Amino acid sequence: MEHPAERPVLAIDFGGTQIRAALVLPDREVACRVSVPTHDEDGPDAVLERIADAATAVLAEARRDGLPEPLAAGISAPGPLDPWRGRVLTPPNLAGWRDVPILERIAPVVGLRTYLERDTNVAVTAEWRYGAARGTRHPVYITVSTGVGGGALVDGRVLRGADGTAGEVGHLVVDIDGPVCGCGGIGHVEAIASGTALARQGRALVERGESPVLARLAASAEEIDAELVARAADSGDPACSALLERAWVAIGALCASLTNLLDPEVIVIGGSIAEHRPRLFEIARREFARRAFPILVDRVRIEPAALGPDVSLIGLLPIVHDRIGDPSFADGSSAAPLVTAQQGAPTS
Amino acid sequence: MEHPAERPVLAIDFGGTQIRAALVLPDREVACRVSVPTHDEDGPDAVLERIADAATAVLAEARRDGLPEPLAAGISAPGPLDPWRGRVLTPPNLAGWRDVPILERIAPVVGLRTYLERDTNVAVTAEWRYGAARGTRHPVYITVSTGVGGGALVDGRVLRGADGTAGEVGHLVVDIDGPVCGCGGIGHVEAIASGTALARQGRALVERGESPVLARLAASAEEIDAELVARAADSGDPACSALLERAWVAIGALCASLTNLLDPEVIVIGGSIAEHRPRLFEIARREFARRAFPILVDRVRIEPAALGPDVSLIGLLPIVHDRIGDPSFADGSSAAPLVTAQQGAPTS
Repeated sequence: MEHPAERPVLAIDFGGTQIRAALVLPDREVACRVSVPTHDEDGPDAVLERIADAATAVLAEARRDGLPEPLAAGISAPGPLDPWRGRVLTPPNLAGWRDVPILERIAPVVGLRTYLERDTNVAVTAEWRYGAARGTRHPVYITVSTGVGGGALVDGRVLRGADGTAGEVGHLVVDIDGPVCGCGGIGHVEAIASGTALARQGRALVERGESPVLARLAASAEEIDAELVARAADSGDPACSALLERAWVAIGALCASLTNLLDPEVIVIGGSIAEHRPRLFEIARREFARRAFPILVDRVRIEPAALGPDVSLIGLLPIVHDRIGDPSFADGSSAAPLVTAQQGAPTS
Repeated sequence: MEHPAERPVLAIDFGGTQIRAALVLPDREVACRVSVPTHDEDGPDAVLERIADAATAVLAEARRDGLPEPLAAGISAPGPLDPWRGRVLTPPNLAGWRDVPILERIAPVVGLRTYLERDTNVAVTAEWRYGAARGTRHPVYITVSTGVGGGALVDGRVLRGADGTAGEVGHLVVDIDGPVCGCGGIGHVEAIASGTALARQGRALVERGESPVLARLAASAEEIDAELVARAADSGDPACSALLERAWVAIGALCASLTNLLDPEVIVIGGSIAEHRPRLFEIARREFARRAFPILVDRVRIEPAALGPDVSLIGLLPIVHDRIGDPSFADGSSAAPLVTAQQGAPTS
């Protein structure tokens, strides 16, 4: 048998929109891709079945192609989740999910030890091992997308906290009097800077007749989303520009909060909205400099993510390899809940 | 010779106002206390001399009293500082201090290995080992005093970050459009909830004639400070009550940010303003519940500090004992800067 590090990993990444599965080879090539819509409205059982089907389809294709057998499987899922016991807790974007023991359902089907990690923790691990945060010990990752998510490493280890839910950078309060977040909290970054927040504010602009540019774009689009608001801003619409400005002031303030609290070497920002808009990074860096400790402003880099949308597949490669043989983490090989050795794990 | 754990520690704690030194006995009794004003306006050399004098006075008294020789010495100092190299960097409340190698100056005088830690990290360690955070792995500590400071442990280890400055909870942005902080940053908790901020806002109220109660109290006081504002609020003054309310809404929002990011078991709040005012804790807990993840609201305790003003002396006992023989931390025994083995230490 080959050395474990030389063997691929079966990688599964799912969220409210899509289920993706693939084989991630030791050189990080992503092979045998399968992608299906989540349709979470059908409930957890139907989604779990789709995940299992996608995974087995990947394994079948890999065998046909003569690729090496995977060492184990990894699942990237939305938080909050319990990585030690392998349970998806109460993800806001997955209807009906509540404390779902996903590993016990998937591992027997794929016939592999299977591990669970939050999608954003997978992403920060990937950027740290292979991307914009290489060579650091304390990287922070922010993704500005439908929501604002992220994760952090502290001295080379994923920041998990007492319950495994730590690192939710999108839910720091930056505007004490601000709007209500999707999670119910008041004044979170996500309520100002997420795609959902931009879309909501963009629709309000159109309703109030305050953005003719966005109204024109909306006439030939299915719906007003964050990308449409950003395009209106790109073409000079003042109201949409102000929304985007405000959103990235909030991201810059978040970077300052994270710096003053965590003292990282780098903050990596991913997500589609900023990808081709360096101006947004300029706003974030400017606000960061106005709000972070002066001695840290020049030490902390704020960088665009280096890895593309495969980040939460690729990051499963090192995560799975690191967990093999670590009794702290459930691997789905037993239906009985593990007694975890991880001191930080919840005791309940 | 007795076992190291049975031996006392020479503890030194200093800030912008006071230098305190004492012998902390293994049962945490604080003996042979010496306390002198800092007078930082005289510059670092004069202050270092006062620290050395206070320390040697403690040692002399301890010998007279027949107490056991201390194992080593610990210094609690204001941040930012470098605990690995033993240097006080640029503390905002100490005039003229800039990268001061304090261990090299104090250790030879006291004739003991000497270790440096930020005062708030000493406090969180003390509350964790002996106080309100006992039995946890991820405690957070906030002190609401002249400033708003604090520290955190992650899985039982002090959160230090890449440069040793992590844990500065008072400098998270909670009001993106808020006032400028003493550190220069915009919208930090400290700019809203610190004693300095309350005093500043209280003076403004009196100048505008908006708080007759505070004006009356001020007439028989040396100056308007936070305690005076709090007393005006205690006696029902609406304007001062609103200031205190706003300050503790900010503390509650901070608790929510820290919970969503760090997922602690407990947040311990110390400092004189809240000590006899349970109402302030009620405001903080209410705002915390409105802004933290619902699944964490009931899991995270928000507790008053259990240890009194000696917290930054007592915490040096476990810190010094843990560091003895750890090559990551300078102990002042060599004038040459240490090459640190701590991977998280700065390389510059």
